[in-house]
Amino acid sequence: MAKKKEQSQRKRTPLTELLRVPVGDAVHLARTDPRSTPGTNGGKAAALAAGAATGERLAALQERLYAASTAGDRRRVLLVLQGMDTSGKGGTVKHVIGSFNPSGCRIKAFKAPTPEERDHPFLWRIKQALPQPGEIGIFDRSHYEDVLIARVRALAPRAQLRRRYEQINRFEKALADDGVSVVKVFLHISYEEQRERLLARLDAPAKHWKFNVGDIEERALWPAYQEAYELALERCSTAAAPWYVVPADRKWYRNWAIAALLLEHLEALAPQYPEGDFDVDECRSRLLSS
Amino acid sequence: MAKKKEQSQRKRTPLTELLRVPVGDAVHLARTDPRSTPGTNGGKAAALAAGAATGERLAALQERLYAASTAGDRRRVLLVLQGMDTSGKGGTVKHVIGSFNPSGCRIKAFKAPTPEERDHPFLWRIKQALPQPGEIGIFDRSHYEDVLIARVRALAPRAQLRRRYEQINRFEKALADDGVSVVKVFLHISYEEQRERLLARLDAPAKHWKFNVGDIEERALWPAYQEAYELALERCSTAAAPWYVVPADRKWYRNWAIAALLLEHLEALAPQYPEGDFDVDECRSRLLSS
Repeated sequence: MAKKKEQSQRKRTPLTELLRVPVGDAVHLARTDPRSTPGTNGGKAAALAAGAATGERLAALQERLYAASTAGDRRRVLLVLQGMDTSGKGGTVKHVIGSFNPSGCRIKAFKAPTPEERDHPFLWRIKQALPQPGEIGIFDRSHYEDVLIARVRALAPRAQLRRRYEQINRFEKALADDGVSVVKVFLHISYEEQRERLLARLDAPAKHWKFNVGDIEERALWPAYQEAYELALERCSTAAAPWYVVPADRKWYRNWAIAALLLEHLEALAPQYPEGDFDVDECRSRLLSS
Repeated sequence: MAKKKEQSQRKRTPLTELLRVPVGDAVHLARTDPRSTPGTNGGKAAALAAGAATGERLAALQERLYAASTAGDRRRVLLVLQGMDTSGKGGTVKHVIGSFNPSGCRIKAFKAPTPEERDHPFLWRIKQALPQPGEIGIFDRSHYEDVLIARVRALAPRAQLRRRYEQINRFEKALADDGVSVVKVFLHISYEEQRERLLARLDAPAKHWKFNVGDIEERALWPAYQEAYELALERCSTAAAPWYVVPADRKWYRNWAIAALLLEHLEALAPQYPEGDFDVDECRSRLLSS
């Protein structure tokens, strides 16, 4: 049984390949089915069953990453989550952190910029929120809002938006050079699924606080948002910081896929516990006589 | 069975009473047994069994607290954790957050101040890290280091330390007035238990990164630290922000007690979901036709 599982895992194409937006390729979101489940062999039951083991491996690797940072290793991970309203950014954060030690995580949800933030270049507030060496950073929305809603709502001139793609690419390249594994995920839901999820919020009074009439107005701009996402994914999927498109109509797949993506990145880093710089026997004697 | 459980819960003295340091009382830590388990009726098994239900109630109350903040409620909770090395501050953070949605939590571990922090008054860095309305804040160490290690290591003149107790009390009163429920917990472990936990770190190479020779040197100052804690607890247990002494030699008790303390505070706040300011039926029609 264990052997069989090992073999099927060895054969599986990494999600980092399956879901990655190839550098330079045109992106057509309509060609990816939001209900599809690429990379799963056994469907929902198998994905849920794999969850506990994946969670343990994520936790173990996170601890090693953090431990390594105490000895000067600057590496860290930054998960960037983008997607339409109700695509599950918040749910993903909750699920992902469930595996990690939250003390080593730095979560940031970006809202509409404050007056202070608007007085600075758009990357300023992003730089304040970056994970430190050894940490797992999670962005719920990000600097991509400045080429997404900013494009759809014409909050900046087109020429400025074009410059921003380049600024983003340079910024993310510098992060990668400084040891940050940038994992950018677009949570891809369908227009129909969003309707169902918004209706579900309306039907539950305890979820009314999550609902804004503005959500319906944003929904009316769906095609413009899809186009803005396609452009952002095309222009900013780079070797240093690729984009991944995660079909997200099925929550179990979304959770499984993002855990698997993080696991592949952490396994590639292969962080190691640092060796102590002290004499264990001497310390033990001192403690025993204390 | 359910009725019996309900009755025993109704009869239980609140931990906020059992563990609170009464305002103005002298504190003698030696009189509290670090292995004791005040407030538990059924011992370890019952405490562990109660964990899941407590976790669900904590999560539900946290969601309401957060939801209420979206409608202008400024209330929030700040858990301050202090204790000697190995007393379990990190483990407590991990356990407590396990119940909450991490997106609504703001965790901060305070280390030795940076040069920038040293250039500011000691409360400056604390103010940067406070929970926002609706959030659960958790401090792993805090402004109390500035009257603890600062006293033991004589990092500041005694007159300045005396002023700091007053500054802390004014600061915490202002927080309480602004809707912050400040829950200050001293994790009380024994000298012997610390020896065992430090030895356990030495015995496991994967834990060597958590070990510093400096820990042994701090341990030699145990009596001075206990005295500094007694003073801080005496001077700064106020009506606005009381201290709680949690016996922490038994990890299951520590986790149970802190979850119970948080639950009592959140239940006292009784946060409510805000009502939507929109016409549900109209929104539903608009969505159904979109």
